[in-house]
Amino acid sequence: MKISPLFHPVEYKGNYLSVLDESALPFKKRYIRVRNLSDALDVLKNMKTRAFGQLLLFYYFCLSDARLNQINTSKKFNRRINVLTKKFSQARPTFAFYQFQNHINTFLKEVKEADFLNDLERKILTYIDSLQRLRLNRVKILSRILAPNPKILTLCNVSGELVALAQELKRQGQIPEFFVSETRPYLQGSRLTAWELKEAGFRVNLFCDNQVAMVFLKNNISAVIVGSDRSTKEGDIINKIGTYTLAVLAKHFNVPFYCLTQPAADTRSRKDVEIEFRPKEELLRYGRKFIAPPTQKALYPAFDITPAEYITKLICFDGAFSPEEFRKRWQK
Amino acid sequence: MKISPLFHPVEYKGNYLSVLDESALPFKKRYIRVRNLSDALDVLKNMKTRAFGQLLLFYYFCLSDARLNQINTSKKFNRRINVLTKKFSQARPTFAFYQFQNHINTFLKEVKEADFLNDLERKILTYIDSLQRLRLNRVKILSRILAPNPKILTLCNVSGELVALAQELKRQGQIPEFFVSETRPYLQGSRLTAWELKEAGFRVNLFCDNQVAMVFLKNNISAVIVGSDRSTKEGDIINKIGTYTLAVLAKHFNVPFYCLTQPAADTRSRKDVEIEFRPKEELLRYGRKFIAPPTQKALYPAFDITPAEYITKLICFDGAFSPEEFRKRWQK
Repeated sequence: MKISPLFHPVEYKGNYLSVLDESALPFKKRYIRVRNLSDALDVLKNMKTRAFGQLLLFYYFCLSDARLNQINTSKKFNRRINVLTKKFSQARPTFAFYQFQNHINTFLKEVKEADFLNDLERKILTYIDSLQRLRLNRVKILSRILAPNPKILTLCNVSGELVALAQELKRQGQIPEFFVSETRPYLQGSRLTAWELKEAGFRVNLFCDNQVAMVFLKNNISAVIVGSDRSTKEGDIINKIGTYTLAVLAKHFNVPFYCLTQPAADTRSRKDVEIEFRPKEELLRYGRKFIAPPTQKALYPAFDITPAEYITKLICFDGAFSPEEFRKRWQK
Repeated sequence: MKISPLFHPVEYKGNYLSVLDESALPFKKRYIRVRNLSDALDVLKNMKTRAFGQLLLFYYFCLSDARLNQINTSKKFNRRINVLTKKFSQARPTFAFYQFQNHINTFLKEVKEADFLNDLERKILTYIDSLQRLRLNRVKILSRILAPNPKILTLCNVSGELVALAQELKRQGQIPEFFVSETRPYLQGSRLTAWELKEAGFRVNLFCDNQVAMVFLKNNISAVIVGSDRSTKEGDIINKIGTYTLAVLAKHFNVPFYCLTQPAADTRSRKDVEIEFRPKEELLRYGRKFIAPPTQKALYPAFDITPAEYITKLICFDGAFSPEEFRKRWQK
C-alpha cells in the first residue's frame, strides 16, 4: 500500500529533523532541515508543516534539541520542554502543544536516568509508531460507516488519511470519488489533498470554496470528511477556516458530517479556545504577488469552531461516536 | 456625489467603445478600445467587463457596429442584430442578450427611417440614461428597508450600485460597513467591490469565501446584498457562483437576503437557464501562474441559481418585492 508523503511529513534524524515543505507542494517536493529552535519556529509560523506534522515536529524536536544541547536528565529536560511548549504555542496558538508536553511528561516518569536520552527516544518513537497504526485503524472505522462507493466532500488536508481511506475502500472493492474545496488562502485542498489523492490514482474534482452549495446540490455527496486540529470535551471541533461553513451546509443538505479527531484532552468548551488570526497579507497575496491592494482591511482567522450539533460522528482511534457519546466519555 | 467607475464601465464613442478593463483592476485603471465584433467578443469571453457592463456593451456595440458598417435601415439593422445576439450569447450563455435584442426591436418600430441611425442612437442613449437613473433609484428603495447603520455582506460586484447605496446611506446620516467575500476564482469581490467602496471612503472588511459562516456568526450582519445576471418569473436568481452558498447560510443565520435585479423577462423557470461552465484553467491558475497541477480535474460553473425560497426581497426599479409578490407580477 502506497502511503501519502503527507502521512508522515516530518522525519527524525537524531540531531536534526527533515520536514516536508508543504508550501512548495504540489510543484516541488522538497524537505527542510530543522537543526535548531529558530528553524522549528520558522517552519511552524510559515506553515511549512501543519496538522499532524505539528505533532511530529514537537515530539521529534524535543528529542533532537535534547541531543544537540546535551539535555540528558529528566530535570533538565523538564525545564527545557516548558520553554519549547511556550515557544511553539506562541507560534501557532490554536494547536494544543501543551497536551503533547503533558503526554511526554507521562513518559518521563518511566525513563531510566542512566540512559535518559536513548530510553526517552525509544519510548517516543514507539509511541509515534503506534499513533500511525491507530490513524490507519481510524480510517478503517470510518470506511465501515460510509455509504458504498462514497462521494466524499472535503477541505484542507487530513495529513494523508484520506489516501489511506481511499485505499482501504479500494481494498474492499469500492470506488470512492472526492470533491475537494480548494481552501483559500493557502490552498491546502488543491495543493495537498487533490494532489495526494490524484497521485494515488483516485478520482478527484477540485472546486472553489464558494461553489460548495452547488456541489452538494448537483453531486449526490455521501459524506463530508474533515480533520481537526483540536476538539473540546463537548464535541466541538476546531479546524481550518471553512469547516464551519461546510458543516452548516452539510446539515442543510442532509449529508453526514464526519470528523477525524483525537481525544479532547483538557479543552472543556469552545469558549476556552483561542483562534489564531494570521496576518492579512496572507489573504491579500498569492505567493509574493498582491491580489488585492496592500492597504485593504481584511480578516484572516486561520481556524473556525464547528459546534457539536453540526457533527454526525467524531471518528476516534477506538470508534465512531456521536457528539453525545463523545461528551459522555469525558464526563467520567 | 462621486460615482464608481464600475457604475458606467462602457462608454459609447460613436465609431468605437471604450471599455473599463475590470481584469486589470485594482492595480491598473485602463480602458480597452472596442472597434469590431472580434474585439467585443474578446472583451466578453475574457471577462474584461461583466454584469451591467455586458448590457452597455451590447447596446452600444449594436450602434457603433451599425455606424461602422453603414447599417442604416431597420431591415438591415434587424438582420445584423440577430447575428450579434447569437454571437454575444455564445460568448456568455448565461446572460440573456436576446432580452436586449427584443428591447431594441421595440425601439426600431418608432425609429424614423430617414434619419435611422441618429434617431436610434438618440433613443438608445436616452434609454441608458433613464436606466442609470432607475439604478440610482433602486438603491434608494433598498436603503429604506435596511436596518440602520447596516453591516452588509456581499460577493462579486454589483457594478457600482453598492457605492451608490453607501452614499445614499451616508446622505441619510448613516454609517454602513461592508463585509466582502473575495469571490474566487476571479476575485471580483476583492478586486472590484472592496476597491470601489474603499476608494469612495467606506468601511470594508475583505474575507475569503470559505470564512462566510464565521463572518455571519461574529459580526451581527444586517443583510446580504447581491446583484443578479438574470432572474426567472418564479423569483429565482442567477448570479455569480457563490451566491447560492451565501443565500443558504443567510437563511441559516436568519439574515435578510436582498437581490438587486431586473424584470424577469421571458425566463419562466430556473430549468430554462443554461449555466456557463468556464475552462478549468481559470480555477487552476492565478493570472498566468498555476496554483494547482494543470492536469487536475476541476469544476467551474461561472454562475449558480438561488431558488426564490432563500430570497427575502427582490429589489426592482419600482419597488422591493418578496418572491411571492414578484411571481404575481409576471402571472398577469
